[in-house]
Amino acid sequence: MLVVDEVILESDNIRSRIESDQFAGFMGIRLLELKEGYSKMSMTVTDRMVNFHNVAHGAAIFSLADAAFAAAGNSHGKKAVALSVTINYCAPARKGDRLVAEAFEESLGGRTGLYRMVVRSEGGKLIASSLGMVYRKPEESI
Amino acid sequence: MLVVDEVILESDNIRSRIESDQFAGFMGIRLLELKEGYSKMSMTVTDRMVNFHNVAHGAAIFSLADAAFAAAGNSHGKKAVALSVTINYCAPARKGDRLVAEAFEESLGGRTGLYRMVVRSEGGKLIASSLGMVYRKPEESI
Amino acid sequence: MLVVDEVILESDNIRSRIESDQFAGFMGIRLLELKEGYSKMSMTVTDRMVNFHNVAHGAAIFSLADAAFAAAGNSHGKKAVALSVTINYCAPARKGDRLVAEAFEESLGGRTGLYRMVVRSEGGKLIASSLGMVYRKPEESI
Amino acid sequence: MLVVDEVILESDNIRSRIESDQFAGFMGIRLLELKEGYSKMSMTVTDRMVNFHNVAHGAAIFSLADAAFAAAGNSHGKKAVALSVTINYCAPARKGDRLVAEAFEESLGGRTGLYRMVVRSEGGKLIASSLGMVYRKPEESI
Repeated sequence: MLVVDEVILESDNIRSRIESDQFAGFMGIRLLELKEGYSKMSMTVTDRMVNFHNVAHGAAIFSLADAAFAAAGNSHGKKAVALSVTINYCAPARKGDRLVAEAFEESLGGRTGLYRMVVRSEGGKLIASSLGMVYRKPEESI
Repeated sequence: MLVVDEVILESDNIRSRIESDQFAGFMGIRLLELKEGYSKMSMTVTDRMVNFHNVAHGAAIFSLADAAFAAAGNSHGKKAVALSVTINYCAPARKGDRLVAEAFEESLGGRTGLYRMVVRSEGGKLIASSLGMVYRKPEESI
Repeated sequence: MLVVDEVILESDNIRSRIESDQFAGFMGIRLLELKEGYSKMSMTVTDRMVNFHNVAHGAAIFSLADAAFAAAGNSHGKKAVALSVTINYCAPARKGDRLVAEAFEESLGGRTGLYRMVVRSEGGKLIASSLGMVYRKPEESI
Repeated sequence: MLVVDEVILESDNIRSRIESDQFAGFMGIRLLELKEGYSKMSMTVTDRMVNFHNVAHGAAIFSLADAAFAAAGNSHGKKAVALSVTINYCAPARKGDRLVAEAFEESLGGRTGLYRMVVRSEGGKLIASSLGMVYRKPEESI
């Protein structure tokens, strides 16, 4: 059916735009799930992602949370850009750990949207928790 | 003089520890200046650091700010780990832009320290502003 | 039984300490529920709590979230003090609105704890979302 | 001169709007200085502003920072509403302490503005440091 096809095409289009993200690719981040207002991504901590304390760099963990944030924020197909992000670190991650981040839409308004991200180890341990706000440009498609 | 030599050696040691950071190296981040409670770093936005809107990824900008934060936080030679970081984005950066981040120590207590980071373009435009808090372990050297 | 009595007494003690909070009283904040790692509080926006735009002042909304945060953070009976709090505002509240805040423990470590707070209108609309980190002093009872 | 008079009148108007803030009045907050993109305010910690640890409540300190933020954010005469605020606490304040907050404009765009707030004791000790972002509605005067 045409209507269904269009929906699928638009959704595929959003997904392929999000998967084209250069920095996420550089970090080895993979998109596991994408729905309107939600995304789930994974990343394995490589030996290039540790800091001088020899644990996963906070910015590497942030990168995963931020990729999930960007995907959820743009999941409606309208352009959204980050204004403010806070991340709180709860436990260290180590080289070889596979991390999973989920982004949940907490609020969606005309011009702003709020997202909550959690980064967990495969065992389910909370590594970091984050809140991010986007400025939305609903007149521009992604 | 022995005392001076020891100071120099310790300071060199801190600098080389900070410069050994794998993730900062992966991102092409360079340490420009390091003093107690202060650091200055630079990074050029490569074609692998853009997002699907084709501007510098927020997490790449965060990485630079965070590297400056980690250097300033550990600049006293005592181990400090990030607890919480907030970043606010003011203007986009683009492929090829050379960005400079400075981290300033706002407060240093026995167990915590607060740092303010600013990321600017070479022209001096504010790209992002950040606040980060560390938990200090003064009984452990870096 | 003595053991049970002691538990009850300690829990009552924590509750009465939390309810003795002068500023929460000044703001008309009421403790609705308190469990280990969780609290629920309410506040009605009075005509003294509006700002010069004539909606609920962001700091009044923050006060409710922060009171819930402090209660959850100290709910284990050990002293916890706020290090960092971020609040994101999603929708305005108005004079006469009764707001309810809940604080959820996201992570509890030896020295730090992370809490997530949501402030909603009675109708369930999200007014604000917040993340706060405490520094714990487990050797000191509240 | 008419032009000068109009400027003065508009500035007086902004100041009186800001000083009409009910919540700031409730907290005993006083406006010390107001310029475009800057404000300075003071507040004395009363016995109603302490928490159950008997030090100044984090939300009382936040209230002062937030009042300075709102004043600086609206100082251009155009309506600005808070989107996101982060506060980091550096040292406790006590009953009777007179605190002074300053808000500095870090960035001003068409739709957003970023402000940095510092709260100090009269002796100059840093009590709290904060970053706040506003959403601007330049088509609406305050």
